[in-house]
Amino acid sequence: MKGIVRSEHFLQIRLRVFTEGTIPADLMTEKIDFKVSAEALRIFCVDCLVKVGLNQEDAGTTSDNLIFANLRGVDSHGVIRLKIYADRLRAGGIDCRARLQVVSQGGADALVDANNSMGQVAGVFGMKVALERAAESGFGIVVVRNSNHFGAAAYYAMMALKEGMIGFAATNSGPSMAPSGGRQARLGNNPLAIAVPAGKHLPIVLDMATGAVAWGKIFMAQQEKKRIPLSWALDETGAPTDDPDKAAHKGLIQPTGGHKGYGLSLIVDILTGVLSGSAFSTHLKSLYKDLQSPSGCAHLLAVLSIDRFIPTSEFGSRVDEIIDLMWNCPPAPSVERIYVPGEIEQEIHQERLAQGIPINPILKEELSALAKELEVHAPI
Amino acid sequence: MKGIVRSEHFLQIRLRVFTEGTIPADLMTEKIDFKVSAEALRIFCVDCLVKVGLNQEDAGTTSDNLIFANLRGVDSHGVIRLKIYADRLRAGGIDCRARLQVVSQGGADALVDANNSMGQVAGVFGMKVALERAAESGFGIVVVRNSNHFGAAAYYAMMALKEGMIGFAATNSGPSMAPSGGRQARLGNNPLAIAVPAGKHLPIVLDMATGAVAWGKIFMAQQEKKRIPLSWALDETGAPTDDPDKAAHKGLIQPTGGHKGYGLSLIVDILTGVLSGSAFSTHLKSLYKDLQSPSGCAHLLAVLSIDRFIPTSEFGSRVDEIIDLMWNCPPAPSVERIYVPGEIEQEIHQERLAQGIPINPILKEELSALAKELEVHAPI
Repeated sequence: MKGIVRSEHFLQIRLRVFTEGTIPADLMTEKIDFKVSAEALRIFCVDCLVKVGLNQEDAGTTSDNLIFANLRGVDSHGVIRLKIYADRLRAGGIDCRARLQVVSQGGADALVDANNSMGQVAGVFGMKVALERAAESGFGIVVVRNSNHFGAAAYYAMMALKEGMIGFAATNSGPSMAPSGGRQARLGNNPLAIAVPAGKHLPIVLDMATGAVAWGKIFMAQQEKKRIPLSWALDETGAPTDDPDKAAHKGLIQPTGGHKGYGLSLIVDILTGVLSGSAFSTHLKSLYKDLQSPSGCAHLLAVLSIDRFIPTSEFGSRVDEIIDLMWNCPPAPSVERIYVPGEIEQEIHQERLAQGIPINPILKEELSALAKELEVHAPI
Repeated sequence: MKGIVRSEHFLQIRLRVFTEGTIPADLMTEKIDFKVSAEALRIFCVDCLVKVGLNQEDAGTTSDNLIFANLRGVDSHGVIRLKIYADRLRAGGIDCRARLQVVSQGGADALVDANNSMGQVAGVFGMKVALERAAESGFGIVVVRNSNHFGAAAYYAMMALKEGMIGFAATNSGPSMAPSGGRQARLGNNPLAIAVPAGKHLPIVLDMATGAVAWGKIFMAQQEKKRIPLSWALDETGAPTDDPDKAAHKGLIQPTGGHKGYGLSLIVDILTGVLSGSAFSTHLKSLYKDLQSPSGCAHLLAVLSIDRFIPTSEFGSRVDEIIDLMWNCPPAPSVERIYVPGEIEQEIHQERLAQGIPINPILKEELSALAKELEVHAPI
């Protein structure tokens, strides 16, 4: 019986992924014991990506971003994306030989054309330009056009930490949310990430989507036959629903905080796709559809040079103090401790670096099949 | 009976304002017919502020910001603040003769010390510097320290629209929210605003607090003896409550979207108070407490020069198109139309410009008393 429920569950996910273009974020919700070391998984990703045409460096960049997400427990942006990236590269929807180009740059700003490269390659390139601009002008802001899905946004924001700077990253993405009051997908679950260096404490890293919830949580509720909060999803008529089945069947994710999440998602789309001359709103292709067509994705990468405002060491002490103020806040009932953004991910990172990255049976099967197809050694 | 309920209601508001330092945002929820023209109300504000020591120009700047909020229907940031501003100016908590100072400026960045001036004066000054920086460097980012409550954030962000640029404004504020999992106020309901010029359409203006709701809505539910959603507030133990009485009695507002609103509020505090060397978290004074002490508030004002990325006219057409895509989204049941951020406020602005700004009886009484005290003519 459990097997049947599981098959139906995964069938639904697959259907959703391949027919509607949404994200199988919940494949990792299965309880499993199989684990692979980050290093072995990284080598595997690189091998696969090289086999489908990327050069070693670009394959390394992309793999670093995927493994980064898995290590931090953000499995929805980890190796679960490897197959679709490989499929898009093979189908020509992503150009494995694309050359990135700085279209223009001034004091603080730069416009980059990714020419349909891997999103990760474009994101890292854009962030490097933003770091240069910030070093020169105090603030750097780079918009990248004609790119693709770039994985976990925090990865790029955190590149600024090594330079003792504050990093920002955002991207638009395939439509999956309606504007408040609507019932058709017109905006992506667009994420924004901000990374702030601390002094003796670990950095603060906020990486948030503008939607209320990931599809994975709705699929889980479906599987467990539980109601969902009315703030999570809409049914196909556009009405809020507490029925996960109605949400999963042609429903939509709601923006986080109602009109606020809608507003933030719209602003991210404007600061990326609209501003750069790239695709936006319904013009943007989903990662899982039209594998042979460019997605038209756009990113924003920005960097703030702290020492233009305050000595970096003093800033670090002050960030430590605000972290202490959060940690020391008296907790609500049944709350063990209070976290700052990014702290849980840092803890999972340490744990998984030591113990390996868990791979669920479905993902294991998918990666094994990919390995066989590409004639690459699989560590799984 | 209604009179008694109302008295109790207002008594609670007053108590909350003067003992706990929160905001009487609901004074405007009373249905009233009394209206004053924006121009008459502005003159009244200027007269009062000049009487308590501001010069004509600074009084004008402050009044413009208050009337702007009232015109847009954001009455919580309108003339309802006049008395507390006057009280703080008289008590010395705000320095009516403060001189603003650009501490440092580079390519994109500048640090301004408000030296405890009126927040509105500091906000406008900071935004002017940000506009200069953006004209020179493509992006301008100004952090203002040692300032005070600056009213509606959208006012500053919208200053960029006249220059055909995108404006950003954020501020920290007196603690009124706990970090997720906490039960003590450690962060403000810190707002951020972004204004984007369109082509033929009106601009998009997002002005959002990082809290789930304004106190006013909780007070209204109390008055109407209605339950509130569990996502709005915490009781004094830190547990989510649907009882507005428990929320109002030593409770707290919840961050919008749970940990996301908490993260955003924390980031705003870091990019303003922490970065500038001003007050942050619990070090920040509430507008309604310690009237003789500086609040230590800090603001962030930023401007993006669109034509560094794309011709402004092309950007305008693209913004028009994304607005059309939102407007034309099929609506959910019982939804008449879909709005873009700032659109409702624009409509109220037109209406109130023509018909006047409504003033409820309690506010009318407060302003009349202030007028009498300061020997100023009241238009009410």
